[in-house]
Amino acid sequence: MPKTPVPPETEEFLQGPNIAVIATLRPDGRPHTVPTWYEWADGRILVNMDRTRRRLEHLRNDARVAFTVMAPDDWYSHVSFLGDVVEIREDPDLADIDRLSLRYRGEPYHNRGRESMTALIEPASWSGWGRFAER
Amino acid sequence: MPKTPVPPETEEFLQGPNIAVIATLRPDGRPHTVPTWYEWADGRILVNMDRTRRRLEHLRNDARVAFTVMAPDDWYSHVSFLGDVVEIREDPDLADIDRLSLRYRGEPYHNRGRESMTALIEPASWSGWGRFAER
Repeated sequence: MPKTPVPPETEEFLQGPNIAVIATLRPDGRPHTVPTWYEWADGRILVNMDRTRRRLEHLRNDARVAFTVMAPDDWYSHVSFLGDVVEIREDPDLADIDRLSLRYRGEPYHNRGRESMTALIEPASWSGWGRFAER
Repeated sequence: MPKTPVPPETEEFLQGPNIAVIATLRPDGRPHTVPTWYEWADGRILVNMDRTRRRLEHLRNDARVAFTVMAPDDWYSHVSFLGDVVEIREDPDLADIDRLSLRYRGEPYHNRGRESMTALIEPASWSGWGRFAER
């Protein structure tokens, strides 16, 4: 897999409200996957979750993640990353989840009582397919 | 996560040509994700890949996988599985990849020289969201 950064046209794609799936590691080393909203933040991947989510524990226990982004109109075209969580922080005023919700849904996040947590992923390598294949 | 089997309405959904992502484990234990076609085969998940794919090595090295299936019209509605690869076999006459290609693309697989390999995953537990949330 090529090292990051990704080519400019791939980076442009990553800024859209695309379909994404994150893989984390359970304490026993088994992978776990779930779809997620994300934001491409200057070469890092921002994700947000409720404090009660098991995958927050996974990320604290083992920072290694995989991340796949697919075009909503053509999921054959996709970009997958290997990376590490480099920061986990609270999102007390829901600024991060509201930004994600506005981008994906066009409105602020519905649950104003959410205990909102944000993780930042530093991607190290990537592979692409379809419109985003490595050249 | 509830144990399998999934409820009947979820099983019906799983039989469609949905978006799917598989997570495998690299030799160093790091997760790796990639979108994939799949077939729901009597409670097992059938996937197919070219013999040269790195994830075939991953599956032979460590049978533990995670698998997420998303509705094409609403990826918020999804089902995720933990499971194990229980069989890896050759697909010499391309029967498996042709069946997948017909379901997803409406035509036989284009590359008739493919060294086609099939893996069968036995899901052990699942979680659902949106239309497929656990009740």
